[in-house]
Amino acid sequence: MPTTKNNSGIESLRFLTPARAIEVRARFGSPVYVYDQETLRRQAEACLAFPHAFGLTVRFAMKACPNAAILQFFESLGLHFDASSGWEATRAMRAGVAPQKISLATQEMPENMPELRRRGVLFTACSLNQLDRFGRQFPGEKLGLRLNPGLGSGHSGKTNVGGPGASFGIWHESLEEVQDLVMNHRLHVVKVHTHIGSGTDPAVWQHVAKMTLQLTREFPEAETVNLGGGFKVARGADEKTTDLQKVGAPVKALFVQFERETGRKLKLEIEPGAFLAAQAGALVCSVQDIVSTGKKGHEFLKLDAGMTEILRPSLYGSQHAIIVVPGPISRSAGKKKYLVVGHCCESGDLLTPAPGQPETLAPRLLARAEIGDVCVIEGAGAYCSGMSAKNYNSFPEAAEVLLREDGALRLIRRRQSLEQITQNEG
Amino acid sequence: MPTTKNNSGIESLRFLTPARAIEVRARFGSPVYVYDQETLRRQAEACLAFPHAFGLTVRFAMKACPNAAILQFFESLGLHFDASSGWEATRAMRAGVAPQKISLATQEMPENMPELRRRGVLFTACSLNQLDRFGRQFPGEKLGLRLNPGLGSGHSGKTNVGGPGASFGIWHESLEEVQDLVMNHRLHVVKVHTHIGSGTDPAVWQHVAKMTLQLTREFPEAETVNLGGGFKVARGADEKTTDLQKVGAPVKALFVQFERETGRKLKLEIEPGAFLAAQAGALVCSVQDIVSTGKKGHEFLKLDAGMTEILRPSLYGSQHAIIVVPGPISRSAGKKKYLVVGHCCESGDLLTPAPGQPETLAPRLLARAEIGDVCVIEGAGAYCSGMSAKNYNSFPEAAEVLLREDGALRLIRRRQSLEQITQNEG
Repeated sequence: MPTTKNNSGIESLRFLTPARAIEVRARFGSPVYVYDQETLRRQAEACLAFPHAFGLTVRFAMKACPNAAILQFFESLGLHFDASSGWEATRAMRAGVAPQKISLATQEMPENMPELRRRGVLFTACSLNQLDRFGRQFPGEKLGLRLNPGLGSGHSGKTNVGGPGASFGIWHESLEEVQDLVMNHRLHVVKVHTHIGSGTDPAVWQHVAKMTLQLTREFPEAETVNLGGGFKVARGADEKTTDLQKVGAPVKALFVQFERETGRKLKLEIEPGAFLAAQAGALVCSVQDIVSTGKKGHEFLKLDAGMTEILRPSLYGSQHAIIVVPGPISRSAGKKKYLVVGHCCESGDLLTPAPGQPETLAPRLLARAEIGDVCVIEGAGAYCSGMSAKNYNSFPEAAEVLLREDGALRLIRRRQSLEQITQNEG
Repeated sequence: MPTTKNNSGIESLRFLTPARAIEVRARFGSPVYVYDQETLRRQAEACLAFPHAFGLTVRFAMKACPNAAILQFFESLGLHFDASSGWEATRAMRAGVAPQKISLATQEMPENMPELRRRGVLFTACSLNQLDRFGRQFPGEKLGLRLNPGLGSGHSGKTNVGGPGASFGIWHESLEEVQDLVMNHRLHVVKVHTHIGSGTDPAVWQHVAKMTLQLTREFPEAETVNLGGGFKVARGADEKTTDLQKVGAPVKALFVQFERETGRKLKLEIEPGAFLAAQAGALVCSVQDIVSTGKKGHEFLKLDAGMTEILRPSLYGSQHAIIVVPGPISRSAGKKKYLVVGHCCESGDLLTPAPGQPETLAPRLLARAEIGDVCVIEGAGAYCSGMSAKNYNSFPEAAEVLLREDGALRLIRRRQSLEQITQNEG
């Protein structure tokens, strides 16, 4: 399900139609996030079909898109949830998610752990200190452990989710200290968790699963192995999406082999965020200006949105398909190379950077635009509304709309007001 | 006023003392921004002393730190304001700023221009389309023009605030179209504005001022020249701060020369943001975990803050001094190299990147830390509270406190609640 380009080499809309995009803007204003229930369901079903030997739990990494309506829909499909902070765990419960379906694996252990535990939220310790604190607060209880197996998918010396340059999880060489803490606090380690951002290569998945199962041998009470998320999803036209059947098959085989060797039937957990939501969201906004820096320069489309709604291009040089929707007035067709920029007074507010290079200008071929045209930014369902430079230049948080499977559009978050932005001042 | 290092090579607190930082956390919680009124005054005075021949207006680029208390204090010192969106203009008026002191120069012309004009907000057109729209709405009125003189301070092909790779302002080769629009709408161009981020070199300032004055010759009604902001301010220990007296002297000389040649006494405007506020702010937070990835790996300090409060290191590889404040319990002194990371489940949430390289790990020498220590991040007065990945991982917006000149601490923004984060959902 990659982003497609049409015959003229221009990227196409994914789940909206031009008429629908225009309708969304007319009804809900601009900019507005739209989420497609059908895509959410399809992606959830793909994850729920991940190959497994002895059971599977799919947890939505809710930081990707924490709107209550999204959480509620995923819960109705049988998904569980990964909360990355105590706030998120509480947020999910307020949305109606059963506490037993929420697993908290966080960089910052919250103050209200006793309340979260009392209500039934699961906990995965991500550091020795967390393990010790949990043990002192809840001796004799069950928990999971997030381990850093010493391997990451990125370059050394760079930020990464695994390996020596990553702060996530307990370093694999500290197992002796782990066992001491577990014993001293009479804890039961029922889950072993790793997450290294495994990408699209089945061989890498196999290697990671093997390593994780090796670690799991050290924890005889572990019933579940969580391999994290980080499945690749193609937002740009030239990117690849992880084939879950392909990467999952060798993983399943390893679980079967583990059972043969140990008699232990391990349940598999995965925690996708982007894979579940990225392609299910689009930002509908407007071309509000077009400026030129001369024949040797560039033509810029200026949107009424930007890093305030979609920060990923500015932060990581991420690629999002951008589609100009022609207006109702007929005009000459054609295409043109544009730089697309956001509405902030910030040179880094660029929607068309070079891949992985946030500050490098990469003009993109788009349908010829006019001021006032609707513009759709695809791949905006994950880490966009949830991770943006919200309120920069005092722009209010955009509205969110759900495109239901019955075709109805439902407002699931109202646009923020200026009063709300400043409500805690004074 | 650079960030200083003490004898042991460790960066020092700027305006807080260890006791004060501990007091701030005890009274207002963690994390919390603290702004120093004395530094705000000193920086404002430095800007108001910028060399000028025929008058000076200093506008605070309010996007840098839009809290009402900061705006009110700056107004009391005689500063005016640069609003980068219609929302900001309204926000400043709500804070009590006189509309006549607000100049709107925006990438996105707001819907409520008629109301803003009626109240007295000034307007600077930043594109041909804005100029035309303004002319149609307000024929015969006064306005400013932001021009792109074709020169930027950065590399070509990269994001920049001036030159062919920048979308800010009207391209200098479009002056004929500008004059047509001005004539057709009988407009009066009373201000010419450029902003190219001029840095610390007096020669560059001189060149920019010369170019801008050359453009000003084309607008005989112009009374004011605005040279923008972008003055460098040293946040890290190895950075340089622009010496306003040095860069301003040749600028003043050019204004004098311009008057001799044309008889026109031009008023100067400057629009600092970071220069006024960056060093006046600090984020007081906590070391909430310390993790290691072994002898060949790194030691990580995990804060209860991060890209949710200070996005600049993740976005631009910006350098902020970080000071660990020893706790009350006596312990062995010493120092150690740490990577400092934020509390988000995001590999890019790194507070100690290499300069200009957000994803490159750069361990930093700090006082030896213990879990629970107060940690202060300096240089957090500009583009931190105003430009952050707010609410990512559902962390609430931090509180803001003003350290008054009389020594009192005043809460100027309460910490956000989870209810407020989700108040527009459903």
